[in-house]
Amino acid sequence: MTELRTETEHRPADGHEATMLLERARAEVDPVLRAAVGTLPGPMRRIARYHFGWEHADGTPAAGGSGKAIRPALVLAGASALGGPGARAAAVRAAAAVELVHNFTLLHDDVMDRDTTRRHRPTAWTVFGDAAAILAGDALQALALRLLAEDAHPAAPAAAARLAQCVIELCAGQHADTAMEGRPPRDVTLEETLAMAEAKTGALLGSACAVGALYADAPEADVAALDAFGREAGLAFQLIDDVIGIWGDPRHTGKPAGADLAARKKSLPVVAALTSGGPAAAELAALYAAPHAKEDLERITLTVERAGGRDWAQALAADRMARAMQELARAVPDPEAAGGLLALAEFVTRRTT
Amino acid sequence: MTELRTETEHRPADGHEATMLLERARAEVDPVLRAAVGTLPGPMRRIARYHFGWEHADGTPAAGGSGKAIRPALVLAGASALGGPGARAAAVRAAAAVELVHNFTLLHDDVMDRDTTRRHRPTAWTVFGDAAAILAGDALQALALRLLAEDAHPAAPAAAARLAQCVIELCAGQHADTAMEGRPPRDVTLEETLAMAEAKTGALLGSACAVGALYADAPEADVAALDAFGREAGLAFQLIDDVIGIWGDPRHTGKPAGADLAARKKSLPVVAALTSGGPAAAELAALYAAPHAKEDLERITLTVERAGGRDWAQALAADRMARAMQELARAVPDPEAAGGLLALAEFVTRRTT
Repeated sequence: MTELRTETEHRPADGHEATMLLERARAEVDPVLRAAVGTLPGPMRRIARYHFGWEHADGTPAAGGSGKAIRPALVLAGASALGGPGARAAAVRAAAAVELVHNFTLLHDDVMDRDTTRRHRPTAWTVFGDAAAILAGDALQALALRLLAEDAHPAAPAAAARLAQCVIELCAGQHADTAMEGRPPRDVTLEETLAMAEAKTGALLGSACAVGALYADAPEADVAALDAFGREAGLAFQLIDDVIGIWGDPRHTGKPAGADLAARKKSLPVVAALTSGGPAAAELAALYAAPHAKEDLERITLTVERAGGRDWAQALAADRMARAMQELARAVPDPEAAGGLLALAEFVTRRTT
Repeated sequence: MTELRTETEHRPADGHEATMLLERARAEVDPVLRAAVGTLPGPMRRIARYHFGWEHADGTPAAGGSGKAIRPALVLAGASALGGPGARAAAVRAAAAVELVHNFTLLHDDVMDRDTTRRHRPTAWTVFGDAAAILAGDALQALALRLLAEDAHPAAPAAAARLAQCVIELCAGQHADTAMEGRPPRDVTLEETLAMAEAKTGALLGSACAVGALYADAPEADVAALDAFGREAGLAFQLIDDVIGIWGDPRHTGKPAGADLAARKKSLPVVAALTSGGPAAAELAALYAAPHAKEDLERITLTVERAGGRDWAQALAADRMARAMQELARAVPDPEAAGGLLALAEFVTRRTT
């Protein structure tokens, strides 16, 4: 449920295809998204428009972007890979539904995590209050599933069921995350942290691809393979995002430097470092248990790296990407047809190399 | 989104048909509800089972009831009235979906309203924390719409769209309610309080009836009339519930005496009293503005009554019920067929007479 925190203008030149796919997805999905949000009752509409970056807090129009459209792009690329342009065109509404679900979880996560900044702006709950942000999130979930219920495409019910089940998994993932926050760092295992990341991030990327496959009328085995592709790529995404959260440039992440470490977040590189067993692990455990001091952040960052947290995360991200490629090749053997999904997955993981 | 707060054992004898319908609905819907909740991941399942009264906080089985099943009973009665026993049997899953939506809103409302007691037990957020209760609510909404997405009945997509749209209205109603709480009592109009009550309570009762009509393959005019019937009865329901919230016996309401007044809630009888214009209205405004003192509760209760709040609420409840009957007669002219819906609507409003 995390937003990718780097800026597109810093992408390497070979991300061109992905950038084009993202921009095209944004251009196709945004009108559906804006029209859907436009049907919400006044206050819900206002909060949603603020959250998407379309309006300032006072309701005046804003030019801000509403995220990278990775998930809608995956829906459209999945439909296109298995069903061609016709399936792609039919899946635009479903792509908007997936984006609505993503944004519902962002609204709620920010309330629960007390995160104050999102996409370089104050989060909705800091502007409108907790109750308003919770309700706007509730309304966006309902809007997402209403869009699919109103879609006459034969794939719509299966897509709705899959997306609803994904929401349940996202909730379980976020619950595991918040429950983990309250536990001593030493008690948290790498296995449960990975399971949490898969539920929080992998599930929705997988569902996005699977929904695309459903709109291509693909057989269940291919739908499952695209789901697995998205899940594996999603875990790679999360690993890289956690790396960026620790070692990324705050000018690009939109978050203060070291915010994850200052909040003593048990992100994947941190848990890997804590459970690595060496002297750096013990040092990190002591640092993480100590009261929060700003001058410690640099030392913590270094200790996570010395304990192998950064290398581990990057190696596992590469491994998960390799698995994602296998799943993709299974569902879409034609490299030409698979190109869009491949480009999007690579776009996500290329960012730190 | 309020639970009716009186106990069934105190019903008058002529509520027999309604009681039977409620018990039958509970018996038919509960297995579907329990099976659906059983598919949730561990922690979400546990919170949901606690909330429904099926388990204690420690996970051991509880015999507690999970509410009166008014909404599922309305779905089934609506289907039966317009489509007979076949439609009724086909609508059981949809009835469970409506009950899940209702309970999702209860979980979230309790978090926002900081209500600590529900159905005579500590609310879920007091036991599991805010984040867990929010997430369990999110999961129940998703589960409701998943049930409908998985339902092969031809009415399922229209029912899902209607229920999702209803959730959006419920959110707007709850938002209006929470926004109203922060405003000076004198600024709140009766009109907006009625609109809020219709969105918060009328919308879901109306949708329950409409969903039943959809499963009976009823023409759109009849679906709309049953929706209006449920809305009008729902507003009567809320008026009576507000009356019970002020003048009801705490042994039956499951809430401490005068809790609504102590919290300075702008319930319908209170706003009617505040806007009634007489000397009692001015006295009530002064009392409501003063710091909360327990000994004032009796005086506030009396002043709301003297300002006409109680009589107004009961008269308007009767008026709304009359309108509900008109809508019902339009959709279901045969009194025999309309009997179930009529009995349920009367059950709801008979409680204070």
